[in-house]
Amino acid sequence: MPVNFTPTPPEALKPVPGVRLGVAAAGIKKPGRRDLTVISLEPGSRVAGGFTRNRFCAAPVTVCRERLGEGRPIRALVINTGNANAGTGAQGLADARRTCAEVAQLLVCPEESVLPFSTGVILEPLPMARLLAGLPQAVADLAADRWGAAAEAIMTTDTVPKAISRTVVIEGKPVTVTGMAKGSGMIHPNMATMLAFIATDAAVAQPVLEHLVREAADASFNCITVDGDTSTNDSFILIATGRAGHGEIDRLDGPAYAALREAVTEVARFLAQAIVRDGEGATKFMTIEVNGGKNRAECRQVAYAIARSPLVKTAFFASDPNLGRILAAIGYAGIDDLEVERVRLYLGDVLVAEHGGRAAGYAEEDGVRVMRAPEIRVRVELARGEASATVWTCDFSYDYVRINAEYRS
Amino acid sequence: MPVNFTPTPPEALKPVPGVRLGVAAAGIKKPGRRDLTVISLEPGSRVAGGFTRNRFCAAPVTVCRERLGEGRPIRALVINTGNANAGTGAQGLADARRTCAEVAQLLVCPEESVLPFSTGVILEPLPMARLLAGLPQAVADLAADRWGAAAEAIMTTDTVPKAISRTVVIEGKPVTVTGMAKGSGMIHPNMATMLAFIATDAAVAQPVLEHLVREAADASFNCITVDGDTSTNDSFILIATGRAGHGEIDRLDGPAYAALREAVTEVARFLAQAIVRDGEGATKFMTIEVNGGKNRAECRQVAYAIARSPLVKTAFFASDPNLGRILAAIGYAGIDDLEVERVRLYLGDVLVAEHGGRAAGYAEEDGVRVMRAPEIRVRVELARGEASATVWTCDFSYDYVRINAEYRS
Repeated sequence: MPVNFTPTPPEALKPVPGVRLGVAAAGIKKPGRRDLTVISLEPGSRVAGGFTRNRFCAAPVTVCRERLGEGRPIRALVINTGNANAGTGAQGLADARRTCAEVAQLLVCPEESVLPFSTGVILEPLPMARLLAGLPQAVADLAADRWGAAAEAIMTTDTVPKAISRTVVIEGKPVTVTGMAKGSGMIHPNMATMLAFIATDAAVAQPVLEHLVREAADASFNCITVDGDTSTNDSFILIATGRAGHGEIDRLDGPAYAALREAVTEVARFLAQAIVRDGEGATKFMTIEVNGGKNRAECRQVAYAIARSPLVKTAFFASDPNLGRILAAIGYAGIDDLEVERVRLYLGDVLVAEHGGRAAGYAEEDGVRVMRAPEIRVRVELARGEASATVWTCDFSYDYVRINAEYRS
Repeated sequence: MPVNFTPTPPEALKPVPGVRLGVAAAGIKKPGRRDLTVISLEPGSRVAGGFTRNRFCAAPVTVCRERLGEGRPIRALVINTGNANAGTGAQGLADARRTCAEVAQLLVCPEESVLPFSTGVILEPLPMARLLAGLPQAVADLAADRWGAAAEAIMTTDTVPKAISRTVVIEGKPVTVTGMAKGSGMIHPNMATMLAFIATDAAVAQPVLEHLVREAADASFNCITVDGDTSTNDSFILIATGRAGHGEIDRLDGPAYAALREAVTEVARFLAQAIVRDGEGATKFMTIEVNGGKNRAECRQVAYAIARSPLVKTAFFASDPNLGRILAAIGYAGIDDLEVERVRLYLGDVLVAEHGGRAAGYAEEDGVRVMRAPEIRVRVELARGEASATVWTCDFSYDYVRINAEYRS
């Protein structure tokens, strides 16, 4: 059960002109489950992406980087769940390319205009026969209103589909932004086993789109952690089909970019938070806010030290205001000249620690009250600068261990 | 239940001439349990220490650093469990000093010759009345053969006492090395909630003793992790009473230093591994060995990435050879120019991955066989240099979550 999260009903997901989606049950891992998705884009669409920094990146990530790096026009995406095609060596690369070639043939477009994505178990070869056999069905299913079906078909251990739409007006034209993501375990920057696809019919110049994908990621997918692991397959793709009818956005300082950025970031943040809310075994959603740092990097360091600590995460699971564990995490976050006497720690609005120790007015029952809620805000004031950072995470429960101990069985 | 570990019987712990230990039940956290230890040292003893790098270090750590830094002769140590006196601000410092003053009065030695140590819950004030009332009983209990009682009295969530003795001959004289430690949760370099005390009757010059404490820590306590958290209270103390009758060891290049180093390191490594074997909820003991790195630092980075990954740790708990998770951890360890095609991964003696993917000869049943054992060796060959590093860790089980969710209740 995700924490405080209701999936968007499929009918509330707005089609994006120029984008069609289709799904199929290819039996990649389990028979009968929809596990294969094809997204086709009208000619003239622009695509930008951000990918995992894991050196053992999956074969499809390598292929995506190559094709986007060469500036090739992109006409389709193909996504399978059940198998990550990671740690699969030369065969994995060949399989990813073969999958794209097959999609290209079905859609009548160049092989290099197709981007592959995979998620699931690593170190096992893609079951190519079943995957390829499923592609015609996915292509036959292509339609503009299949975002809901696709959001389900990309899930792995996710318990709910994650998708949302926003609209914004640019130069008097309505512009749609619709996105979907899958996450669940291994979520940490940079972007863990997470796939996210956001599409808009805005018209955006390629360099501007590439800037936007980074800005949106930094305010969303790069601010979350479930278990601190960085996956082999993380990918965030931003598509702009250019069908909305306004003038192309080719600069960062105008109102058009600002409006689009706000909508895309809002969708990305919704999806990122949804991934945490549906984190493996999650029972609590925590916002870790660090203010007063010398720069954003050190604020993020402190926020992540708290968000990643298994001791902090189990205390949140237990609704135990064991705040010393948070102080300890702040202390080992790596700020060598931190003056701990100046640090203030708040749980919700309750000041719990200052002057290097428990705050005089703090009563444990106030801490317990905050900790019992399914949404908890931790605020750290470092009092040494003006920078801030926020990270979202979830607790560590019995179920986290169960899910990850049983994942392959 | 610790993994493959039988506590040393108290009668096998050899007294160290010049060292006496006494314990008491002061009721610091729970009534009736021995929770207070005093160690007295004969005049002329030398003491060196290593401490946590956590900025929120506990009050007793601050006092220890001060007194050792000023080069004061040390005559006694006082250790309480049940409360860490960390995150306790100015009051905590005053309480630590007050405790030392009381011990000094009872032993008739200078206040500044006493070192304080605390372990337990953080952010709660030391119950001074009970602690001070217990000191006379601990002092009355002082005897050379109380290492076994002391090893029990310093425990927190440890399930077994951890102590051992070694003897070595230096210049024809028998020299004893006896040590004890407590650990359990929050174990990570640099030395997490871990207290370790090793004493020898060897005669060692102060600068040599300070070198030895670092060398021994780097080969033992700085090579372990249970949950990745670095605690506020970690302390490792090395005592040399100089009673063995050989000439003082005042250089690092002679056979006397080599012999002593070997014995001290062996004791330190036994204690460090015992801490991991008794890690909270541990069911497996894992040795992570990384070879072929450009330097030790990058080997440690890779070893710790594996050892800290909750996904790896839960897979080991489940005896699931989900080796992709290990590859993923190698990939995100932070070696930016790692050529993953050259990396080889072994589980025990089984080659499981090479050329960026699963090894051709690998059969899953071989992986399962290795994973089922309570002791598992993971070996990574980076093939880019001559350096190595080894890290010891344990798995993540349901019990880890239970113990840490219930710790304060």
